Amino acid sequence: MTDHQQINVTSPAKNTAAKEALFVIKIGGNIIDDSNKLESFLKDFSAIQGKKILVHGGGKLATQLARDLNVEQEMVDGRRITDAATLKIVTMVYAGYINKNIVAKLQSNGSNAMGFTGADANLILAHKRLAEASKGIDYGFVGDIDAVNTAAIEPMLAQHIAIVLAPITHNGAGQLLNTNADTIAQSIATAMSGQYNVWLLYCFEKSGVLLDASDDTTVIPTINQTYYQSLKEKQLIFAGMIPKLDNAFEALNSGVEKVIIGKAESILDLVEGKAGTTIQKS
Amino acid sequence: MTDHQQINVTSPAKNTAAKEALFVIKIGGNIIDDSNKLESFLKDFSAIQGKKILVHGGGKLATQLARDLNVEQEMVDGRRITDAATLKIVTMVYAGYINKNIVAKLQSNGSNAMGFTGADANLILAHKRLAEASKGIDYGFVGDIDAVNTAAIEPMLAQHIAIVLAPITHNGAGQLLNTNADTIAQSIATAMSGQYNVWLLYCFEKSGVLLDASDDTTVIPTINQTYYQSLKEKQLIFAGMIPKLDNAFEALNSGVEKVIIGKAESILDLVEGKAGTTIQKS
Repeated sequence: MTDHQQINVTSPAKNTAAKEALFVIKIGGNIIDDSNKLESFLKDFSAIQGKKILVHGGGKLATQLARDLNVEQEMVDGRRITDAATLKIVTMVYAGYINKNIVAKLQSNGSNAMGFTGADANLILAHKRLAEASKGIDYGFVGDIDAVNTAAIEPMLAQHIAIVLAPITHNGAGQLLNTNADTIAQSIATAMSGQYNVWLLYCFEKSGVLLDASDDTTVIPTINQTYYQSLKEKQLIFAGMIPKLDNAFEALNSGVEKVIIGKAESILDLVEGKAGTTIQKS
Repeated sequence: MTDHQQINVTSPAKNTAAKEALFVIKIGGNIIDDSNKLESFLKDFSAIQGKKILVHGGGKLATQLARDLNVEQEMVDGRRITDAATLKIVTMVYAGYINKNIVAKLQSNGSNAMGFTGADANLILAHKRLAEASKGIDYGFVGDIDAVNTAAIEPMLAQHIAIVLAPITHNGAGQLLNTNADTIAQSIATAMSGQYNVWLLYCFEKSGVLLDASDDTTVIPTINQTYYQSLKEKQLIFAGMIPKLDNAFEALNSGVEKVIIGKAESILDLVEGKAGTTIQKS
């Protein structure tokens, strides 16, 4: 038995500490693009006890709509360059179609929900990313987060409303901005950690952080900073996972209790700490 | 001076009665389609003191998007037949693009706002309109309203949040539905009238109910039921206005204090009862 397996995993719902538990769960395109998977996930999400925030990405729908409308899409380092026509598309798809269908499905599962962008109640204030002069990249209407309005979130959670966030923010001056959903989840989780015992869950297409990226059975159950460093030194961490894990440790160092990475299909096990990879500060 | 002009007009904001004032304001396509007019209206709306709900229609954007996507649109008696592809379009345009841009603009004007569909917090529950077998019309995913969740609206108004409603409802079983914005405004106004002294304002392209439909200077300042009947008998009411006025009287008979019909550009005068046509029960 290695060190990392000995770390005790306790679900926040069962935590008797002073702070109440809050789950911040991010789902990505692989779930959103598959209506059966999404429906099943939302049923599971509705069954999660306690306070919860769902952050969703956009999936392929925005790309598809852009293609149908002949709006050329340009990606730089996996990020969408957001010109005015693209901002209109992502606002329609993320804040309209995806967000409202998720909310309606949650209602049908008996989970009261409200869907938002960062503009609603000024939940997430951002600024337009400056063009990186050195690289000559202008990301367009992409927003980097400045502030999360925790005071506006709190009364809704108190009413047991599941908050569903689309990856659209605003700058306070009337401009909507396209913002990465992973970053929104991390910012919300960090901001809420002052009041809550926050578990941040990233749901993606794999079962967790894998020792062998091509073998979904090689999930590493628990990673702390020491173990992460040793895995990196042995080059046992898949390159694409490094920024995700760096972000996870950043969240942990900013007050988030635990970060879990795993499959959306396993969400009910993930929130119990029984599946996926749990990333812990120590 | 005729009888209808003698009716005393008092703004609800100044009303000293037990119930607090609430404005339910509906704006239509002629404002939404014109970004300058919309921006100006939202500035004025932000300046309105007191509690307020804004219901917006869809304008030409949905029709334009349907054309761009080659989704054929069928209208029956001015109502859009809403097949699955059209529902997707109106959800994207109404609940996404229009709703979130309005919210962002209101925030920039210092008016805290939240944008919703009827699915959010189960605000408006509806059922799919049955195909009218006799006429052979199937409206598709069109919703007729069953219930308004006033308990969910109240805490937001108490926090001085302007509520912005897109004309999309849900059936509680996971299905979004396209619902007429005028009807949403009327239903919300009626439902809230138990707690509030509600003024329902319909903003459209004309200055009010006109004696001569072709002359915008012939606004009738005040209409009550008796005067309405006499105008109808004299055939002095433009045919297209009759259903609007019938709805207005229905709202008044269901608890709404006053209905005002007028131009969005005059909203600050409308809420003072200084412009447009005021429809009063008696």
